[in-house]
Amino acid sequence: MAARKGDLKLLGMVVSPFVVRVRMALHLKGVSYEYIEQDLFNKGELLLRLNPVHKKVPVLVHDGRPICESLAIVQYVDEVWAAASSPAILPADPHQRAVARFWAAFVDDKFFPAWIGIMRAETEEERAKKAGEAAEVTEQLETALAQCSDGKAFFSGDSVGYLDLAVGCNLFWLDAMRKMFGVVVIDAARTPGLAAWADRFRESGVGKEVLPDADIAAEYARKIQAYRAAAGASK
Amino acid sequence: MAARKGDLKLLGMVVSPFVVRVRMALHLKGVSYEYIEQDLFNKGELLLRLNPVHKKVPVLVHDGRPICESLAIVQYVDEVWAAASSPAILPADPHQRAVARFWAAFVDDKFFPAWIGIMRAETEEERAKKAGEAAEVTEQLETALAQCSDGKAFFSGDSVGYLDLAVGCNLFWLDAMRKMFGVVVIDAARTPGLAAWADRFRESGVGKEVLPDADIAAEYARKIQAYRAAAGASK
Repeated sequence: MAARKGDLKLLGMVVSPFVVRVRMALHLKGVSYEYIEQDLFNKGELLLRLNPVHKKVPVLVHDGRPICESLAIVQYVDEVWAAASSPAILPADPHQRAVARFWAAFVDDKFFPAWIGIMRAETEEERAKKAGEAAEVTEQLETALAQCSDGKAFFSGDSVGYLDLAVGCNLFWLDAMRKMFGVVVIDAARTPGLAAWADRFRESGVGKEVLPDADIAAEYARKIQAYRAAAGASK
Repeated sequence: MAARKGDLKLLGMVVSPFVVRVRMALHLKGVSYEYIEQDLFNKGELLLRLNPVHKKVPVLVHDGRPICESLAIVQYVDEVWAAASSPAILPADPHQRAVARFWAAFVDDKFFPAWIGIMRAETEEERAKKAGEAAEVTEQLETALAQCSDGKAFFSGDSVGYLDLAVGCNLFWLDAMRKMFGVVVIDAARTPGLAAWADRFRESGVGKEVLPDADIAAEYARKIQAYRAAAGASK
């Protein structure tokens, strides 16, 4: 376990892929921290004080100072725990770093909204339409994998890194959607490279030890549906 | 002038704040490059080939390899031209870097859409509503300035850095909107710190030498309006 370097807390929510991303980064570095689950339906004073701008998780609190936005947090973790004994999360080469940052932004701007669209669809017709849109985005990620991995096992090469965490933290939700709706976002026929990568990611250290079970996401999704139905019924 | 380190081209568009941001970063580093203006109404083969995912400017091409997304490019420029003789764009301290990255994302996710909303409003009523929304976002940037500058001249301290470029590249559009619609986004009464910062930024090296004139933005805006009106008329 790497030196803890002061007091470290993470405000999170168990099914947030952005929180999972940060937990994976801390796990890769072997850093211990106190995890504090947040109720996003009833946001507490701590969260509102530490992330007054977005009022969202994750928030990493290091020696009392908050850091928000998962990609900024992952880079922070990589920079603070940069000892030679712990694996680097971002590539060392500036061009590879820029490409990883480009695709990580793509994941959050295009891939995340695409699968959330499937989850939130209210009719089967809308869900099929959203699945079609997500398929196009996933094909672009297949290109990204070919560009970044250079034939190796992960986006970042021989081991899991920045872009692997950026994409991989979403996998348990994709698995939950397959169970709930029968929708396959990463399809082995359409995006064989990405499907094989996803299998390898699930079997990696962070995949096995940090990625939540799909059932936890499915259960949360059913809670949200019930909450919405109740809100609709009380209109 | 810093060593050029290979062939450097920038695909841009004169009134894009994201392109201006990258030009400012290259100017800060004293790096020379070939600038290639793009016609976004009629995108050329070069742009489509170099940024097939988003088909947008800026694209920095270094020794034939494209880098896209302005914030990724600025970080790339900072990392490649990191000699002690050129100023650092990102802070050295990991926490300050994380805070700068957080607010830079805020600028692109909240501040840019807020002022674009004013620009695109089709009625005076809608414009007033959008100006009110932008005022709230601007007040959050006032908080960011207080948090980051620690009482110094710029977001980044005594000289212009990452977050100054992220915000400052938008200033010529705000000036254009004041001229065109009389809308003041950075108001000296409501956000005095930010207004004083904007004056200092305009008078800084990159402000004077890279920031386009507001009239160029206003002229472009009128072209867009005419283009839309023509498109509407031909429906």
